[in-house]
Amino acid sequence: MSVADRLTHVRREMANAGLDALFVPRADEYLGEYLPAHNERLRWLTGFTGSAGLLVLLPGRAVMFVDGRYTVQVRRELPPALFEYLHLHDDPPAQWLAAALEAGAVAGCDTRMHSLSWFEKTAAELGRAGIALTATSENLIDRCWTDRPRPPVVEVTLLPDEKTGESSAMKRARIARTVRELGADAALVFAPDSVSWLLNIRGGVMPQLPVVLGSGLLFENGDFTLFTDPDDLPGSFAGHVGEGVSVLPEQEAVTAFAALAGKSVLADPLTANAWSQLALAEAGATLIAGDDPVLLPKACKNSVELAGTRAAHLRDAVAEVRFLAWLDREVAAGRLHDEAVLAERLLGYRREVEDYHALSFDTISAAGPNAALCHYNHLNAGAAPLVMDSVYLVDSGGQYTDGTTDITRTVAIGDPGDEVRRLFTLVLKGHIALARARFPAGTTGTQLDALARQFLWREGFDFDHGTGHGVGVFLSVHEGPQRISKAPSAVALRPGMIVSNEPGYYRDGVFGMRCENLQVVRECDDAGETPMLEFETLSLVPFDRRLLLPELLERAELDWLNAYHARVRSALSPLLEQPERDWLDGATAVVCH
Amino acid sequence: MSVADRLTHVRREMANAGLDALFVPRADEYLGEYLPAHNERLRWLTGFTGSAGLLVLLPGRAVMFVDGRYTVQVRRELPPALFEYLHLHDDPPAQWLAAALEAGAVAGCDTRMHSLSWFEKTAAELGRAGIALTATSENLIDRCWTDRPRPPVVEVTLLPDEKTGESSAMKRARIARTVRELGADAALVFAPDSVSWLLNIRGGVMPQLPVVLGSGLLFENGDFTLFTDPDDLPGSFAGHVGEGVSVLPEQEAVTAFAALAGKSVLADPLTANAWSQLALAEAGATLIAGDDPVLLPKACKNSVELAGTRAAHLRDAVAEVRFLAWLDREVAAGRLHDEAVLAERLLGYRREVEDYHALSFDTISAAGPNAALCHYNHLNAGAAPLVMDSVYLVDSGGQYTDGTTDITRTVAIGDPGDEVRRLFTLVLKGHIALARARFPAGTTGTQLDALARQFLWREGFDFDHGTGHGVGVFLSVHEGPQRISKAPSAVALRPGMIVSNEPGYYRDGVFGMRCENLQVVRECDDAGETPMLEFETLSLVPFDRRLLLPELLERAELDWLNAYHARVRSALSPLLEQPERDWLDGATAVVCH
Repeated sequence: MSVADRLTHVRREMANAGLDALFVPRADEYLGEYLPAHNERLRWLTGFTGSAGLLVLLPGRAVMFVDGRYTVQVRRELPPALFEYLHLHDDPPAQWLAAALEAGAVAGCDTRMHSLSWFEKTAAELGRAGIALTATSENLIDRCWTDRPRPPVVEVTLLPDEKTGESSAMKRARIARTVRELGADAALVFAPDSVSWLLNIRGGVMPQLPVVLGSGLLFENGDFTLFTDPDDLPGSFAGHVGEGVSVLPEQEAVTAFAALAGKSVLADPLTANAWSQLALAEAGATLIAGDDPVLLPKACKNSVELAGTRAAHLRDAVAEVRFLAWLDREVAAGRLHDEAVLAERLLGYRREVEDYHALSFDTISAAGPNAALCHYNHLNAGAAPLVMDSVYLVDSGGQYTDGTTDITRTVAIGDPGDEVRRLFTLVLKGHIALARARFPAGTTGTQLDALARQFLWREGFDFDHGTGHGVGVFLSVHEGPQRISKAPSAVALRPGMIVSNEPGYYRDGVFGMRCENLQVVRECDDAGETPMLEFETLSLVPFDRRLLLPELLERAELDWLNAYHARVRSALSPLLEQPERDWLDGATAVVCH
Repeated sequence: MSVADRLTHVRREMANAGLDALFVPRADEYLGEYLPAHNERLRWLTGFTGSAGLLVLLPGRAVMFVDGRYTVQVRRELPPALFEYLHLHDDPPAQWLAAALEAGAVAGCDTRMHSLSWFEKTAAELGRAGIALTATSENLIDRCWTDRPRPPVVEVTLLPDEKTGESSAMKRARIARTVRELGADAALVFAPDSVSWLLNIRGGVMPQLPVVLGSGLLFENGDFTLFTDPDDLPGSFAGHVGEGVSVLPEQEAVTAFAALAGKSVLADPLTANAWSQLALAEAGATLIAGDDPVLLPKACKNSVELAGTRAAHLRDAVAEVRFLAWLDREVAAGRLHDEAVLAERLLGYRREVEDYHALSFDTISAAGPNAALCHYNHLNAGAAPLVMDSVYLVDSGGQYTDGTTDITRTVAIGDPGDEVRRLFTLVLKGHIALARARFPAGTTGTQLDALARQFLWREGFDFDHGTGHGVGVFLSVHEGPQRISKAPSAVALRPGMIVSNEPGYYRDGVFGMRCENLQVVRECDDAGETPMLEFETLSLVPFDRRLLLPELLERAELDWLNAYHARVRSALSPLLEQPERDWLDGATAVVCH
């Protein structure tokens, strides 16, 4: 079926349902960053492969809303005769639709695919123009997508307590206390990574995000009802999670909701889908808007999770260093491979690592000017070859059964010149300032963000992305609630939280660079008058000394860099063979003025 | 009348009014930091002289709520037989009263003395316990305070455009546009400093805050109704402020409110008193909750205001330097004066400065361990003499008709030792980091705060106050909306905003120190790729070189300090006589490793 035929088919369903417009988001019922193939409805309908977008379909128009990352890509992927394009933030879709339709019109959406917050705001915006927003009784795309892939069979892995450090029963009891303190009888645990962490299970549908797709209800007594296909669960599941856990197929969630009539249920309108909250309200439950109570406990890793993460980072660093050593040899031999070959080679080294599960995200392998695009993916662009006398940026990570990694290194290809070195040194100074920071309890990522930007700012430069995101343990490489960014955050950094430290710099059409390690918050040993927190760096890969202007580094910064490189050398050398070990010796040699 | 008699008298009025409790805050109808003597109702009733407190008076109990600054002082000032004491934040008064009274009881307050936000929250909290909160028809303290001072006659000064840089008509037209954009027909301009700035007038009731006490309504066409005593205004007032400004006695504000029936009025429930907003609602106006629209324009000084501020800082620095030079001579001669003598001497030098109006706040003159109390006032404590081999902290400022100053210097008295020097150097490093900062538009004080704390944090120290507050021009020494602090702020720093830069360190019972300059936000001249903002330092007084450990300063920090001292020397030397000029040469000599 062509895209045109698909649009015709969906428009026919819209007419049957009495709809003047239909919202089709790039989302599924879990509202996460990753979608399994059978839930890529927007891609099926339009051909768009980006990670964020919203189609507003009218009988005679099809308007695709994307953000700045995808304004070029959307024009390449969608047939221009069939679609218009607008900017998701500059032209908010609800506002646009309110002007495009007449009063009395009816717009539809599948409330499983939108947050309650989106649904309420959109309904209010349309309502002011006399337009109704209704929930379709079923997904209209699914009615048309006749060859939709079947959901793959999930292989659910049960993680033993030795890997998680805390049994599901203990986690549930601990978090149920929070639910009670918030005055709720139950909490909707909506995100699959929250559910998977809470039950100490993992699943294999999406390799990069090893979660079991399902949501659930945590009751104030610690009992849990999991909404997922019971057939996917191994026989040992009941024994693994302990007493008080029941399983219902997702289609039967409403029967569990019915038991909550007259009770208070905590749910996050920003992250949980509208359908579940509307169904709870329909069943007579009172909704308490609040954060997913699993987020914070999941973010604060225990000592077992941290030990696993450290081990995973050590093994991952071996793959990364083997790749970087190989890359230098190839460039020295005049072989300027393309971005796809490089990404494949790095993947090959990771595949050799013990307990490797998958990449934690699509590798960003960007040569020369391509690195100036923060979200570059060579698969969408035709892989370009390395550019001599420039830099190569590689941002990648692995999912291991004991931890998740994410690291970016920027590599000199030939002699990139002193302007690139100056910028790299400013970026690295920011990275070091954040890595060395100490701060009292209660400090948020918003307060620390400027430490990583101050040197760029002083010279009139900045970078247009956050400085750090949270990272899970054999879970999502992007997790909350903590982050380090300009945006206001009320979430204090706490011991056990893993965050990335990734300042960068991007010169449009010329070059791009980023210095990224993962680091974990811990208490300072040598407590002063006020107890302080600090970061322990997890990633163990040298920064490219060839990109430094050492005279721009202060003594304390040089000391940090040399100590880090010495730590990298002593940790990795025993795990490497020649010639990588020699390469590492050179890459970690002392930098001085 | 004794305090006991006063309490008896007020309790009789409570009984007549049918009240079971009465709230008496340290506030007047303007809800500002400064009160004229005739509005010091809490001080009259209890003897308490602190700047913040709330009395909850019951027929048989009198409970005084104060914060951490005043827990000692309140016990010294109030007769213990008559009062109980609680902590304002640990034991919220409304919560305490809800538990202390029976359902059906009635509590009263004068809604002129509380914000709408306080009134609504307190009414809700008491309401949950079945207790009513009613507005008294008049102030019950005023009924009892028979010898209350008459409000002093205000001398209203009309500031010419050459001093303000913008006529009242232009200011009103500019801000009326904001009012319209917010969908309001008028805005309640409640704060006396907002009103005084908007009309280019000043008043002399409270020397430290030279405002005309009054509030007003700014209409969407730029017209303004001022609520103040018309007899206080000179005949030339009407010509000064231009067309569209009318004046009503405060008691007649309700007649102006009546004309707003059916209209929308912008008012800030956090800062404007409950009475005015309840009266507006009563009159049929719809309240739109939002910031005072004058705050932001007032905070962003124009070039004329900045020129005046720079001139005031230069003259003020002469007074400060003369004082510091005198102090060194006195200490060298073995004369360890007490804190009161020192504060008086500094005041004397300021009084000699051209266009001096008053101090901008009570001078903090703190010797030895007293400096560890951030809000120390020697007038409350019996002035202590200087302590040899310690530090002396002096935080002071002046109101001049062209600007407002606020500066803190910490001075070595004898040899305070290397631990004091280490801490002073860490504090100064933070001050320098903030003074040198560059940052893009949109950056808030929350994002910059850590720059001033990072060196203390790294060594396990911190200070328990904000790093910077806004400052007016011949207006309040504490003004919003900008600030630099750990607390979240949504207000970006903009060109023309004046902020203090005042990191400190306080060791209980031992010593205290603070390094404070005022600085103004400006655009960087040498714009890089991204336009940046930076600070211009306004204060021009040397930091005490004797308190430095130069080896802890990086090259760039030494360069900043030496350049600042060179600027101070060349600006002040021509304005000084001997021996102050020699002193300045020594105080600004180059610091090197």
